[in-house]
Amino acid sequence: MITADVICAISTAPGMGAIAVLRLSGSGCIDLVDRIFTSPSGKKLAEQAANTVHFGRILEDGNLLDEVLVTVFHAPHSFTGEESVEISCHGSQYIQQCLLQLLIREGARLANPGEFTQRAFLNGKMDLSQAEAVADLIASSSAASHRMALKQMKGGFSTELMKLRSELLHITSLLELELDFSEEDVEFADRSELKRIAGNIDHLLTRLCQSFSLGNVIKHGVPVAIVGNTNVGKSTLLNALLREDRAIVSDIAGTTRDVIEDTINLNGITFRFIDTAGIRATLDEVESLGIEKTFAKIEQATVVLLLTDLKRGAESFEEYYRQVKARLTPEARLIIVLNKTDLVEDLLTPQETIRLFTSGEKIVPISARTGANLDLLVQELTRTVNLNALNTSDVIVSNVRHYEALRNAQTAIRRVIDGFQSSLSGEFISQDIRECLHYLGEITGEITTDEVLGNIFKNFCIGK
Amino acid sequence: MITADVICAISTAPGMGAIAVLRLSGSGCIDLVDRIFTSPSGKKLAEQAANTVHFGRILEDGNLLDEVLVTVFHAPHSFTGEESVEISCHGSQYIQQCLLQLLIREGARLANPGEFTQRAFLNGKMDLSQAEAVADLIASSSAASHRMALKQMKGGFSTELMKLRSELLHITSLLELELDFSEEDVEFADRSELKRIAGNIDHLLTRLCQSFSLGNVIKHGVPVAIVGNTNVGKSTLLNALLREDRAIVSDIAGTTRDVIEDTINLNGITFRFIDTAGIRATLDEVESLGIEKTFAKIEQATVVLLLTDLKRGAESFEEYYRQVKARLTPEARLIIVLNKTDLVEDLLTPQETIRLFTSGEKIVPISARTGANLDLLVQELTRTVNLNALNTSDVIVSNVRHYEALRNAQTAIRRVIDGFQSSLSGEFISQDIRECLHYLGEITGEITTDEVLGNIFKNFCIGK
Repeated sequence: MITADVICAISTAPGMGAIAVLRLSGSGCIDLVDRIFTSPSGKKLAEQAANTVHFGRILEDGNLLDEVLVTVFHAPHSFTGEESVEISCHGSQYIQQCLLQLLIREGARLANPGEFTQRAFLNGKMDLSQAEAVADLIASSSAASHRMALKQMKGGFSTELMKLRSELLHITSLLELELDFSEEDVEFADRSELKRIAGNIDHLLTRLCQSFSLGNVIKHGVPVAIVGNTNVGKSTLLNALLREDRAIVSDIAGTTRDVIEDTINLNGITFRFIDTAGIRATLDEVESLGIEKTFAKIEQATVVLLLTDLKRGAESFEEYYRQVKARLTPEARLIIVLNKTDLVEDLLTPQETIRLFTSGEKIVPISARTGANLDLLVQELTRTVNLNALNTSDVIVSNVRHYEALRNAQTAIRRVIDGFQSSLSGEFISQDIRECLHYLGEITGEITTDEVLGNIFKNFCIGK
Repeated sequence: MITADVICAISTAPGMGAIAVLRLSGSGCIDLVDRIFTSPSGKKLAEQAANTVHFGRILEDGNLLDEVLVTVFHAPHSFTGEESVEISCHGSQYIQQCLLQLLIREGARLANPGEFTQRAFLNGKMDLSQAEAVADLIASSSAASHRMALKQMKGGFSTELMKLRSELLHITSLLELELDFSEEDVEFADRSELKRIAGNIDHLLTRLCQSFSLGNVIKHGVPVAIVGNTNVGKSTLLNALLREDRAIVSDIAGTTRDVIEDTINLNGITFRFIDTAGIRATLDEVESLGIEKTFAKIEQATVVLLLTDLKRGAESFEEYYRQVKARLTPEARLIIVLNKTDLVEDLLTPQETIRLFTSGEKIVPISARTGANLDLLVQELTRTVNLNALNTSDVIVSNVRHYEALRNAQTAIRRVIDGFQSSLSGEFISQDIRECLHYLGEITGEITTDEVLGNIFKNFCIGK
């Protein structure tokens, strides 16, 4: 336990509510609250059992500020691991501010962002990746991001890393043992066995790194670019998917010039839909810029919806298809959407013609205007994100800091493998293993600096 | 105790926070939470002592939704007087919504606005005026409105009304006793004594009704109209008072056409400043409409700041002064503000000239541009609101429903006094007293209808 001053903060969402909760943590915080709290029976909070709730009044210079409920927690059985108090007051912003100022006047300090969680980490209540998951959990806005954060908070990630670390420590201890007996030129460790273990670790690190693209889209929304010729109904589709009038729709080709983005939660996954300017040769300078942006967006998208107008049949489809395919990243998925089913009699002929040009992409005929078949399109979109990964015990990396550490660890382990391959001396290999261990330790916080900690917790909200 | 179904709601402010609190009330709510809650030790909430907090997990279809703290309250020792539970979860909006839906699936019902407080009223934990004060307390945004709501919540108002009611009941019981012996033509009650008591009640009701204008401005902000000739610096003064660039300022006379309003808290009182169009003869139709609005605002203001430009001396001051005075309500206060002290050398001459025209109004020379003397003006503004009333034990009426009931009670008590004066029979006088009692009872909720209750609580926030 690290001795720490008393910190305080409003922990509930900002604004007016029926109630608000202020939280204090640090040795002496119960005595601090006792100085401004009066219970009807005159009892002292310091004499109360842990995890009990007490009704009473908060007095400010002898004047009643509010009637509150106060909960006391004793160290180490609290979120931070320290002596803690939660004050539940009436949710007026005025009362919240007065109470906060009163606590500060009584000797508490306003907590830094994430300081409660930071103390929980420093007091060994959780490791660093779990602490980071707390912030993700609070920010989670979809079933997928919630499940991912919760899994990380429960330590799924940490367990996996601990296994890796212990395997690496095993290799390095054998190698270092050899060094102690270097005069005798013995080999305690079977090189091929060690190489096999390092290979497994590389394999696992690769899987974790790969999971990052999924983790990242789950956290920030799956980017879906809607592209196509002018006037095929891209903005109408965007509005239909978002269920609101987000983009201006008109019959005039080239209505959309800015790239319009918005997110919506579909089947528990957050999608970030991007309406783009229609691709066509144009003399309008603003529109040209918009088209360039369209291509940039294709490169960033996880899913691209290539929209065509059924009324126009397969007209210049091949040209667009070729252009879009050329800009697609290898991981991205293309879905061909045939719009305006409500305006054509024969669906099959254009659909078959278009199928000829494609290399097996899914083709979904819809009407953005009437909403026909939109559910099928949404189903297809959901399928592009492999949510099964979330249901298995597989760990998904969603934090860019973890991703970078894993990438660095991977580089190091590959040097280890190369070292075994080229029969490098154990001394050098051991150094690379130490480096790999260092990067893994960074994730869970076994190896950390104040600067790293500062960077992590500054993005938390105050009160957590 | 009225048996009631289990209600639930998010009680903290909407949005993302470190934590959020969901509240349940009603018989069986502890068992309901037990069905979705698992503590590490396997203990059941139903078996726990009142006012204790328990850590554990909320499971949704066997999947972990969140780790939470649960507080149990037993009837009648809770806010509502019923068995209650508070669940403190991570403050993600996703978790809050999932948890709320889970509680509803388990048999709870989403609480109506103010339903928790309504139950507290129905279970006799507080009277109606105290329940209304809870809403005021939550909405309070200044020291004055907070103190006023707190006083009402603590029952200051109710005590005063109870005294009135018991005095009235005393009169009416004497009068009704006489009626029982009407054949014998006795007078148990000394008519002059009864008249004196009724007079006292009338006096008290008058004071309470009068306090409403103060209570109302404390609650909604003291309306302060800034008026004057064009280009005297009204918008500059507004910006200076609000400490931000709220109104567009220019040297062009007639820049402000719309009435601009904004509130700020000065010395614990909320002021609602109203910048108006300059008063002048104009051919511009839009500006004319603005000037008409200016006069309307003067009629609604509690304080009017008549602003003049020191550079122009007393030029046409009398004309403006006369126009403004004519539209002022009797309760309103006029302050004459001489602007642009930074641009004139001689302050005294114009000040003395202007003083000649006025009938003793306070004159404050300032510079809105440099901020000189603004503190004096703020001091003068604060003085217009008699905050002392808030420091004494005097009750202040701030609720329009109470005000109307008090006005009706006053009308009835005046008929009682008239009745005594004209030696009306006790039967008729007693009827008027009953009516007065009825209106007083409406305030505290002794006499109430579902419709009245519905109207009161529908304006509460959900979760309170």
